[in-house]
Amino acid sequence: MSKEISCEETWELLKTQKNIIIVSHIGPDGDTTGSTLALAEALKQVGKNVTVMVDDKVGSHLQFVPGVDSYVRPKAGTNYPADLLIVVDASSLDRIGIVQECVKAPILNIDHHISNTHYADYLWLNDKASAVGQMIYELVQIMPVKMTLTMATCIYVAIVTDCGYFKYSNTTPNCMRVAADLVEFGVEPNVISDNVEMKSKAVMELLPKVLATMQFWAENKVATIELSNELYDEDVSTESFISYPRYIEGVEVAIMFKEVEKAVTRISMRSRSLDVSKVALLFQGGGHQKAAGCTINKPLAEAKNLLLSEIIKEVRAMAC
Amino acid sequence: MSKEISCEETWELLKTQKNIIIVSHIGPDGDTTGSTLALAEALKQVGKNVTVMVDDKVGSHLQFVPGVDSYVRPKAGTNYPADLLIVVDASSLDRIGIVQECVKAPILNIDHHISNTHYADYLWLNDKASAVGQMIYELVQIMPVKMTLTMATCIYVAIVTDCGYFKYSNTTPNCMRVAADLVEFGVEPNVISDNVEMKSKAVMELLPKVLATMQFWAENKVATIELSNELYDEDVSTESFISYPRYIEGVEVAIMFKEVEKAVTRISMRSRSLDVSKVALLFQGGGHQKAAGCTINKPLAEAKNLLLSEIIKEVRAMAC
Repeated sequence: MSKEISCEETWELLKTQKNIIIVSHIGPDGDTTGSTLALAEALKQVGKNVTVMVDDKVGSHLQFVPGVDSYVRPKAGTNYPADLLIVVDASSLDRIGIVQECVKAPILNIDHHISNTHYADYLWLNDKASAVGQMIYELVQIMPVKMTLTMATCIYVAIVTDCGYFKYSNTTPNCMRVAADLVEFGVEPNVISDNVEMKSKAVMELLPKVLATMQFWAENKVATIELSNELYDEDVSTESFISYPRYIEGVEVAIMFKEVEKAVTRISMRSRSLDVSKVALLFQGGGHQKAAGCTINKPLAEAKNLLLSEIIKEVRAMAC
Repeated sequence: MSKEISCEETWELLKTQKNIIIVSHIGPDGDTTGSTLALAEALKQVGKNVTVMVDDKVGSHLQFVPGVDSYVRPKAGTNYPADLLIVVDASSLDRIGIVQECVKAPILNIDHHISNTHYADYLWLNDKASAVGQMIYELVQIMPVKMTLTMATCIYVAIVTDCGYFKYSNTTPNCMRVAADLVEFGVEPNVISDNVEMKSKAVMELLPKVLATMQFWAENKVATIELSNELYDEDVSTESFISYPRYIEGVEVAIMFKEVEKAVTRISMRSRSLDVSKVALLFQGGGHQKAAGCTINKPLAEAKNLLLSEIIKEVRAMAC
């Protein structure tokens, strides 16, 4: 069980440490990356020795974030000495990959996930924060540091990516006001969004092929898209594709079938109100009410039939 | 020349009028629609007789805006009596269509376009406002009215649509703070964005066909998409399609060719930095540095050759 601490106590703790490693979670997103790099800059300003680490590649869409080239990728079997390991935006320890073996130091976890597993020695948790970036902003305010444009940019990226540019339900007045402060400080919203929105040529060439497979079911309440194993490439991110069928008038449930191996189909579901996590559970998957997924060890066509028959049943039951 | 007035003077003027028509501009967007409907509700609260009018259809993506069904579409040859005509978000009088013939009353223009032509009797212009919605918020604050959830929703829609969900360069700290106030009041950001993002089935079925035409030129610095006359349907909005080639890594200029008639090709251009309005001008078009367009009276293939040769010249000159 972690010792839960406040923002002020976090700063008190940090003051006493000299050599600090800050780690981002694997599958690094804008929040873990921006928060880590902003905190690193603040701690360097107060004279700490700081190393930022992540056991993963940082995606090309985040390469513009200031300081991203300072990330150290840990090598298995190597020991990285530190007085304190700060884990940013990871609700469980497995999210930091091999860093848990490579760094033997007390852990401070800064997080905003309600599902946090309390694995750290010290935990500053604010499950009301839209992004950890918002917490870092709060922390920097009480530290004797000067806000810089790079720090502001990192925090801004953290916030806008985690609340989907103020479109998700976790968007709060407070996170919008922090973003406003950062724009006032000099962050250029259009420059950041240009970078965040950028897609690779490969992604944009794959998109129409996947969208061309769109089919409608259950009186157009269900829309599906699919990616066959022939087209599947693990280096081409298809994460955003599900939002296309999701945002069609009248569609209640959008489903993407991705044949990641010849007889392994990964399924993502998004709904407007139907609890798709229940259907995911039938196939040993999980998730949230409006966003869930599962994997069926069958070729795409078969997996699609199995899942669709369940979904169509649920959607028709809803209409009654 | 208009008499320029402030927010306070606008309210002083409104106080003295009883029968008011508020008009949105043709090709109604979220700002003109949300601002008109919020202002109408506020004026009704203080006992005014208010009619909202627009000489156009309001698109299906705005049908969720509270009060949108109260719009009157003017009939040519009919006279609509009023003490005051308020024109919202239109920088020139032709933007209100036949309303200029149907309503003979002094005009108050509430606008934020720097290009405003000063056609109205009274003009409240704030070219620093990200959206007219932000000005309506300011006005409502000084009026003796109670903010309601419908009013807040209308203003929120106006703001987020005109600053592209805080992604455009016109995004200011102030517009973000107004949006934060509205969320605090009870506007649900995810519910609004769900509605704003919604596309018709026809749009989503056309998108992959258009994206499948994507071609790259000038060392991948130029990306083009096209819509042949066979696929063209004036009822299917293709406005957002240009953003797909625009947001590809390395692409400097994105161009969409739309064959609206057999020998008439409408062209939209977006750039990261190149001044595409100069190229548009060569073909009697116009626009802004990073967003411009023109129409070439030729079939698509010919128009494309003509335009591309100019664009490629400019892009190559840039690289030198």
